[in-house]
Amino acid sequence: MDQLQLKRLIEDFLAEDIGTGDITTSTIFANAQMGEALFIAKEPFIAAGMKSVAAKVFTTLNPAIIITETADDGTHCAAGDVLFVAKGPVIDLLQAERVALNLVQRLSGIATLTARFVAAVSPLPIKIVDTRKTTPGLRVLEKYAVRVGGGHNHRFNLADGILIKDNHIAACGSIKEATKRARSQAPHTLKIEVEAENIAQVQECLACAVEIIMLDNMNPAQLREAVKIAKGKALLEASGGVNIDNIREIAESGIDLISIGALTHSAPAVDISMRLNTIN
Amino acid sequence: MDQLQLKRLIEDFLAEDIGTGDITTSTIFANAQMGEALFIAKEPFIAAGMKSVAAKVFTTLNPAIIITETADDGTHCAAGDVLFVAKGPVIDLLQAERVALNLVQRLSGIATLTARFVAAVSPLPIKIVDTRKTTPGLRVLEKYAVRVGGGHNHRFNLADGILIKDNHIAACGSIKEATKRARSQAPHTLKIEVEAENIAQVQECLACAVEIIMLDNMNPAQLREAVKIAKGKALLEASGGVNIDNIREIAESGIDLISIGALTHSAPAVDISMRLNTIN
Amino acid sequence: MDQLQLKRLIEDFLAEDIGTGDITTSTIFANAQMGEALFIAKEPFIAAGMKSVAAKVFTTLNPAIIITETADDGTHCAAGDVLFVAKGPVIDLLQAERVALNLVQRLSGIATLTARFVAAVSPLPIKIVDTRKTTPGLRVLEKYAVRVGGGHNHRFNLADGILIKDNHIAACGSIKEATKRARSQAPHTLKIEVEAENIAQVQECLACAVEIIMLDNMNPAQLREAVKIAKGKALLEASGGVNIDNIREIAESGIDLISIGALTHSAPAVDISMRLNTIN
Amino acid sequence: MDQLQLKRLIEDFLAEDIGTGDITTSTIFANAQMGEALFIAKEPFIAAGMKSVAAKVFTTLNPAIIITETADDGTHCAAGDVLFVAKGPVIDLLQAERVALNLVQRLSGIATLTARFVAAVSPLPIKIVDTRKTTPGLRVLEKYAVRVGGGHNHRFNLADGILIKDNHIAACGSIKEATKRARSQAPHTLKIEVEAENIAQVQECLACAVEIIMLDNMNPAQLREAVKIAKGKALLEASGGVNIDNIREIAESGIDLISIGALTHSAPAVDISMRLNTIN
Amino acid sequence: MDQLQLKRLIEDFLAEDIGTGDITTSTIFANAQMGEALFIAKEPFIAAGMKSVAAKVFTTLNPAIIITETADDGTHCAAGDVLFVAKGPVIDLLQAERVALNLVQRLSGIATLTARFVAAVSPLPIKIVDTRKTTPGLRVLEKYAVRVGGGHNHRFNLADGILIKDNHIAACGSIKEATKRARSQAPHTLKIEVEAENIAQVQECLACAVEIIMLDNMNPAQLREAVKIAKGKALLEASGGVNIDNIREIAESGIDLISIGALTHSAPAVDISMRLNTIN
Amino acid sequence: MDQLQLKRLIEDFLAEDIGTGDITTSTIFANAQMGEALFIAKEPFIAAGMKSVAAKVFTTLNPAIIITETADDGTHCAAGDVLFVAKGPVIDLLQAERVALNLVQRLSGIATLTARFVAAVSPLPIKIVDTRKTTPGLRVLEKYAVRVGGGHNHRFNLADGILIKDNHIAACGSIKEATKRARSQAPHTLKIEVEAENIAQVQECLACAVEIIMLDNMNPAQLREAVKIAKGKALLEASGGVNIDNIREIAESGIDLISIGALTHSAPAVDISMRLNTIN
Repeated sequence: MDQLQLKRLIEDFLAEDIGTGDITTSTIFANAQMGEALFIAKEPFIAAGMKSVAAKVFTTLNPAIIITETADDGTHCAAGDVLFVAKGPVIDLLQAERVALNLVQRLSGIATLTARFVAAVSPLPIKIVDTRKTTPGLRVLEKYAVRVGGGHNHRFNLADGILIKDNHIAACGSIKEATKRARSQAPHTLKIEVEAENIAQVQECLACAVEIIMLDNMNPAQLREAVKIAKGKALLEASGGVNIDNIREIAESGIDLISIGALTHSAPAVDISMRLNTIN
Repeated sequence: MDQLQLKRLIEDFLAEDIGTGDITTSTIFANAQMGEALFIAKEPFIAAGMKSVAAKVFTTLNPAIIITETADDGTHCAAGDVLFVAKGPVIDLLQAERVALNLVQRLSGIATLTARFVAAVSPLPIKIVDTRKTTPGLRVLEKYAVRVGGGHNHRFNLADGILIKDNHIAACGSIKEATKRARSQAPHTLKIEVEAENIAQVQECLACAVEIIMLDNMNPAQLREAVKIAKGKALLEASGGVNIDNIREIAESGIDLISIGALTHSAPAVDISMRLNTIN
Repeated sequence: MDQLQLKRLIEDFLAEDIGTGDITTSTIFANAQMGEALFIAKEPFIAAGMKSVAAKVFTTLNPAIIITETADDGTHCAAGDVLFVAKGPVIDLLQAERVALNLVQRLSGIATLTARFVAAVSPLPIKIVDTRKTTPGLRVLEKYAVRVGGGHNHRFNLADGILIKDNHIAACGSIKEATKRARSQAPHTLKIEVEAENIAQVQECLACAVEIIMLDNMNPAQLREAVKIAKGKALLEASGGVNIDNIREIAESGIDLISIGALTHSAPAVDISMRLNTIN
Repeated sequence: MDQLQLKRLIEDFLAEDIGTGDITTSTIFANAQMGEALFIAKEPFIAAGMKSVAAKVFTTLNPAIIITETADDGTHCAAGDVLFVAKGPVIDLLQAERVALNLVQRLSGIATLTARFVAAVSPLPIKIVDTRKTTPGLRVLEKYAVRVGGGHNHRFNLADGILIKDNHIAACGSIKEATKRARSQAPHTLKIEVEAENIAQVQECLACAVEIIMLDNMNPAQLREAVKIAKGKALLEASGGVNIDNIREIAESGIDLISIGALTHSAPAVDISMRLNTIN
Repeated sequence: MDQLQLKRLIEDFLAEDIGTGDITTSTIFANAQMGEALFIAKEPFIAAGMKSVAAKVFTTLNPAIIITETADDGTHCAAGDVLFVAKGPVIDLLQAERVALNLVQRLSGIATLTARFVAAVSPLPIKIVDTRKTTPGLRVLEKYAVRVGGGHNHRFNLADGILIKDNHIAACGSIKEATKRARSQAPHTLKIEVEAENIAQVQECLACAVEIIMLDNMNPAQLREAVKIAKGKALLEASGGVNIDNIREIAESGIDLISIGALTHSAPAVDISMRLNTIN
Repeated sequence: MDQLQLKRLIEDFLAEDIGTGDITTSTIFANAQMGEALFIAKEPFIAAGMKSVAAKVFTTLNPAIIITETADDGTHCAAGDVLFVAKGPVIDLLQAERVALNLVQRLSGIATLTARFVAAVSPLPIKIVDTRKTTPGLRVLEKYAVRVGGGHNHRFNLADGILIKDNHIAACGSIKEATKRARSQAPHTLKIEVEAENIAQVQECLACAVEIIMLDNMNPAQLREAVKIAKGKALLEASGGVNIDNIREIAESGIDLISIGALTHSAPAVDISMRLNTIN
């Protein structure tokens, strides 16, 4: 993650939560009161972002805050585990609390859900990948959490990958024409991925030397057929309708990648609370 | 929602998704190609943000895009329903697609979950309220979705409400001292809310003329006891451990409000897809 | 004050004053020349912002500048008093000078004027409060200066208080309908304040259990009448036409608060100059 | 005024005042309710900014608002005069009200105070000029108001003028050395102004062919002496300790310019109110 | 190009050039004076950006300006050709002039230089590509100009391509290990490009199934050798030391791409002037 | 240069180059790997910006990077010279590399070209000055490089100088009227410069006491004629059609300044490479 962009994001998030000032805390605590804040897991999950994100929230608010403990990304934690400890002025600890928790609860939720999908296909040689179905404003962070959970990233935006979908194909009349246009103009550093809805389109993709074929909403039989004709000639990515119950069967078809929007758009937050001890 | 702030947010979200340019679409479509984009519900849910958010995404990207249909906020839609129609250059429709969908899928998810909780307590005279456990960067939008679902909003940030929690009380030595400090300095336009963990604290709150008492993780028996002594003297808000299974019993205790973090931190996205028709 | 937002503000203010560079200072002083800058009071006033604002201007421009002295907020200073001392490169001291002085002269002016009003009503149990008639861009700072002067803050923006005025009442047909609408939708953490122009409206407010009644441009007799019927049932705020000559009589009516726009929109700046000593 | 920069400023000011949303107005008015807002003078003053600033506040918030009347800059208005009329959705008119009023009350205050000083020296061939003692963030606007009042502008920032003060002279050892350094490096488009504290320094300035001499805190006798030796050889600017009572005598000394910080740092706001009529 | 990001860039550029206001033009022209601005070529070149950039500068400054003529991107123009015509207030035409000219002179210079290189290799089946050696802040625009000149784009930033250079290889110990690490973690949509300094490294790249091999500073004999062993197995990109005199020989080696930093870092600006006619 | 504005610029430039993250470096290097980066001159040139700009790029990205060597501005360097050394995490050194190089290659190119022009007129008492024909976004930096090369700066933007050109004169009917309007309204700190296209206009300028006369595209004979009548009465600036071959003859005419747009719009970048050593 680019640290400068992360810092700007966090400044915006703190401004959103603090508004014109923490009226409760500032009227109650003395500026000089020091304390220690601990993040405690309230349930089992995979931790993500304690060091790279939560710590940055506290130190962005006040560079004098000291972070003394952070659980490693990917730690399997249990209820009661201490995941993060920060020391500094109580006023600042309380002002940073909500933003930091909101972020790591979400990121850990994504890592945890990703890890469930990854476990479900283990040890098959297949990658679980995310999509662009992320929370607006949080894409880089959410894709980071997917990696923490053992997943891999699909493209980050419309510029770092070519993905020719049904609309593009229809506009050009054929996969052949669409890939020709893309190949002639796009940077040569990007692979071309094409969405195929049936086996005939898979074959058309192969004829065009497409590097990645997205197998859209195909059932396991179709996937196996696609693998039979295309494996090793193009990367094969299954997409659409994947859930924890059917993913194993999909994976066993022999494809290379499975992309899952739910990793980022529907992962429930994990439960973490902050305990504050004042220090005399 | 403040339209200027919403516009800035959307510009940032579009920049995140477009990056240095939509390489696929720009190499395939002619600038002049016009089209029509339709948002189609893929499952039943409560629609939120079609007019106020999705439309704004498209017209922010290109003010020449025309929005011809938008489902009203709160519409109970069924799979197959058309919720939104935009007309304009295909290149722009495709570039706005993902940001608009990511937003309305999330907002509709929140509205839908909120509506489930609201229905669960109906017709009791009780309000379902949100928390500050929102997605960083999206608070105003997510709290809007809560209202669409029939819920109400708790404070938007640390400045528009006084909420004295256990840490504040501990630091002051008593609820009495904490409320005294807050009352003497905070704007007189804000009510004072205090978190009470037991009945003794509820009584202490009443003695201090606290306007709102947050009953933290109390069981139904405790809630009923709190209602017995405090109803009508302060607003009573139940908080903590609320789920769709226990909310009815909590509500029947007679309290005034139930706050639920899951409304915003764990609502799954609803499923909406965009269909594109080119126009000659 | 939120330190991150204050830092952004100060960066903008410095950019405004420095433009493309301090052409005079940069052509005359060597980068290595160190110096000491002292802020000297040129007249008696109440100091505000030396530590929280002036110091931040200098250290934002150059974090290597050391602040060695700052008068406490609320200090009653006399002509000749040294209020602030900074040490660092002369070039930076001179570039920060004007922004820092412009801010503390204004803030001290507001604190001084506020203190005059506060003294005029002392020791009556009444609060002097500000309004939203602040300088655009400086609201948080100006409201801070009001507190330094012994005053209190009214709402900071349109989101952290409900204030139903004549236009709102007219649009609803009655105070009853207006308060009903506001109460049903606004966050429960906000009190409802209603502007009353006569005693009948005060009574209507009481009937609606309004928490704060703004007595708009009422004369002392009307204020006393309002106190007689409403004291203890709602907070009573006098507003409009208040000046240093009539405030005592207004205060003696027994109301709870007096709001004064002039605190922030018409306080003259106090006179402070900066003396620079070079250090060899 | 640069319209793009003004627009960004106004967006920031509106965000400051609206916060997370106008909770009162949005719960009371229907979105469709149209209205007419009139700015009414409550006292006599010189109007400034009705067209260039107030109108821009309303149309920045909502481009659909129509401005039907704006008093010309420099209009001498009387209590009761209508200075500005805007038509549009009531919700937007009320949200723009405070920012627009805060700005034009301040700008008109500056224009009015400037006009008093200008009148006091009329018809002498002398210019009243402002300083950099402006409100941080508002410099371009406040200097515009000075021009509306008949005054002229001194430099806008540290880059568009060379002003060698006592500290600069002390650091160089002499006015000669200071002007030599500045002249050799600064853009040739900028005049060199030097602050002189006595007649000897005025003569030293002349020897260096300084284009402008700032006569710092000189009494009328000193000013007349400076005029005698320097008039026509350099522009002569009186500065320091100028007020409405002594300005005529200062002006009659024959100098070319008088700079007055109070024009911008201590002008009281004029009184303007907004009347709202709903339109059916 | 993303229109929103382009608009923000142009706003920043205009602010840089206008500063606190165009003091010359605003004191001389009446606001109402209308005019027509024409961009005239002063020498032959390939035009770039008249419609997409120059027009946007004028309409960003004032949306009321009408653009009546714009030369197509890629037009081979001669001295005296009219490339662009805008109509609107003279004040705005003059304020936009310099930014618009500075941009199109640079972009046309890049397109012209690119076209020279493209012509030099024509009609060989080879692509001329740019690098990341662009002007900070202008990358998207400069890469656009390269395309106008007939060139193609290499990656836009460090995220949309994998380029393993000598430092990366050294750190991993071998190309094999470096490509393994990159392949296991990077998005599958990106090709892997490796810099090879000799034929042995080319062979190592082939053994790792690298998709693109950058042949770094190889002489024509080495390039031909590389083509012999790698053509068709990986894309071959020549890089380093390319100029207009040696490019033909390099191209004839049979490689696929030639990357040239000078396209963007050293293209001289073309000469264009603006003629202004006032309109009565 | 204003350090705060420079920091913001550099943050934007880094964001442009890093995008969503350096995918190559982050997958290959361990976070803990330290290294040393050296900038090496690949050809002779005048160095500019090593300390003020390159160092700032590295420390802005990561404040823990240590800069151990920087060539002074104006150093005449030879191929092979080490100009800059930075130590820190390899990942950060590689991410900062391209932005830092792109900047100092350009700035050194401008300094080098400027120095060639300065040498060509030496030791005549004449200044080489730049123009507003700079790269949008980089004006302050490019004008700084001109000074490093021994040149001087013309105005930085439209606000810090008055330059009356043919269009302004035509609009007013005469130089007399144009200068009168400018003089009556513009800040008194700015000189008035007028563009003269022939000797008659030079005389008109003198009659108006214009401080600077821009002699537009005059040949040496005309320049000498202008010098004969105007030298010492106004600064004389030659402009237009200046190149390294004709500048000496232009300079010998006796004028005071020569402005050259090519200094900033067409200086080729110098060649600098970065060598990276890992540190164990």
